[in-house]
Amino acid sequence: MVRYGAHAMVWVKDWTADEAATAVKAASAAGYDTIEIPIFDPQLVDLAQTRDLLRQYALTPTVSLGLSADTDISSADASISRAGVDRMVAIVDATAAIGGSIVAGVIASAWQKYAVPPTAANYNNSVAGLREVAQEARTRGVTLAIEVVNRFESNLINTAADALRFVDRIGEDNARIHLDSFHMHIEEPDAALAISLCGPRLAYVHINENHRGYLGTGSIDFRRIFLALAQAGYEGTIAFEAFSGATASPSTAGKAAIWRSVYEDADDVGRRALAFMQQGMELAERTVRLAGGRKP
Amino acid sequence: MVRYGAHAMVWVKDWTADEAATAVKAASAAGYDTIEIPIFDPQLVDLAQTRDLLRQYALTPTVSLGLSADTDISSADASISRAGVDRMVAIVDATAAIGGSIVAGVIASAWQKYAVPPTAANYNNSVAGLREVAQEARTRGVTLAIEVVNRFESNLINTAADALRFVDRIGEDNARIHLDSFHMHIEEPDAALAISLCGPRLAYVHINENHRGYLGTGSIDFRRIFLALAQAGYEGTIAFEAFSGATASPSTAGKAAIWRSVYEDADDVGRRALAFMQQGMELAERTVRLAGGRKP
Repeated sequence: MVRYGAHAMVWVKDWTADEAATAVKAASAAGYDTIEIPIFDPQLVDLAQTRDLLRQYALTPTVSLGLSADTDISSADASISRAGVDRMVAIVDATAAIGGSIVAGVIASAWQKYAVPPTAANYNNSVAGLREVAQEARTRGVTLAIEVVNRFESNLINTAADALRFVDRIGEDNARIHLDSFHMHIEEPDAALAISLCGPRLAYVHINENHRGYLGTGSIDFRRIFLALAQAGYEGTIAFEAFSGATASPSTAGKAAIWRSVYEDADDVGRRALAFMQQGMELAERTVRLAGGRKP
Repeated sequence: MVRYGAHAMVWVKDWTADEAATAVKAASAAGYDTIEIPIFDPQLVDLAQTRDLLRQYALTPTVSLGLSADTDISSADASISRAGVDRMVAIVDATAAIGGSIVAGVIASAWQKYAVPPTAANYNNSVAGLREVAQEARTRGVTLAIEVVNRFESNLINTAADALRFVDRIGEDNARIHLDSFHMHIEEPDAALAISLCGPRLAYVHINENHRGYLGTGSIDFRRIFLALAQAGYEGTIAFEAFSGATASPSTAGKAAIWRSVYEDADDVGRRALAFMQQGMELAERTVRLAGGRKP
């Protein structure tokens, strides 16, 4: 059984105590099982309040982030890479503290537009750093889901094939892959082939439209994506993500390049997304059965 | 009748005298009518050599560029916006000097990842600056084709709807629109609707795959794009663009975020692209006729 989640930034700009309450209530009211919580710096979050809210509304958390230039785990500068490891371990701790078991997002490099390709030192420092984080994370029951993002948001891992090589190099079974329909649309020859390629290494899935608004109003072929997830027997979380100029914080807008409003009503976009994903997966499961079932 | 073009950077990294000769010969040998020439600074180009080469090989040029931060015509700083106007007029002159009639590319802002949304001053300076450039360009028989690019490469004009508003504000009939399949794939609800929306304002078209390699090996639905062009009766140039880590210059790789090689053989990718575009347009024209022809 898959679980359905939504990124908190569908409803709020950040994760202050007030915003945590708003987002948890909204996600619960919309019918989600899981809320994805942005935690970039655990010291800025009231973890006990978050944990209690999640229990009260019976939501499972996942945590996501993008590393910054000064915590770029792929930096060739050992002290910066180390700062990335330290930050990631703190985020793993915070995730366990609020009852979560997945840390997702741009965690193999900084979340930024790079100006040059990665060097061998960048790649190796990221592998070694995340191996260390994964070993710590295992003791807390946490899995790392390394997000595959488009070329403008990282230079290190832009395709599922890149990610498979990368997690194989890490060599820890709780260092796995996070695919996102928006990023796959930009980079992959075919999103369904990418999902199939990851197989059991796939730990987390983001569903968002190419323009980041209402699902089904853009150019992504979600039917192929849902079919590939059904065929793969994916049993993780499928989380909705959306961004609009009307609702994004200036910091997020700058990083994700959100310059225009593609929706105004966060509650509506969130509710309709859940129905879209549930219907899409239900039809995909039915299609796979009709076609003779999954390969044994 | 449409004309088929290819960007010189399919074959070369820059436009030195040697590279000009290489690219013109390769484009001609592949069967193209038009070559798209990157001219960012006309003072660095031997225009007479380029003009002679084009005549010798019977190729029509188009010129394309992206403005830089110090010639950002959308800058709120009047002196920088003015530098953008001056640079654009120089490029219009160079275009006319080599026998061209279209200047395309990221010419309404700098070609860069912005950190903040545009202000009214940015928008208005770009409109006023390009109006002045268009008026100069008319005296040289040159049309401006303002490229609609994705959110990571400009903050000003990311969709066909943005571009229509923008050229309406300029109000000069030689300030028109340049659409690109790669950018539409990221931003548009639907590329065919975008083409249809532009109608006769569409002056130039880039065709490239979502991962910027071989046409037909990615996730762009080119059939819809060719059908929309055929239905609109588009009679301009359709130009192939591709980028690969194996062939891009460091400067282009940095700006366009080219981190991996999606092809090695430039001649092969260029030849196959022409066949793909010709076949696509031929089938689209046939489909439109079969469906009863274009609306009168």
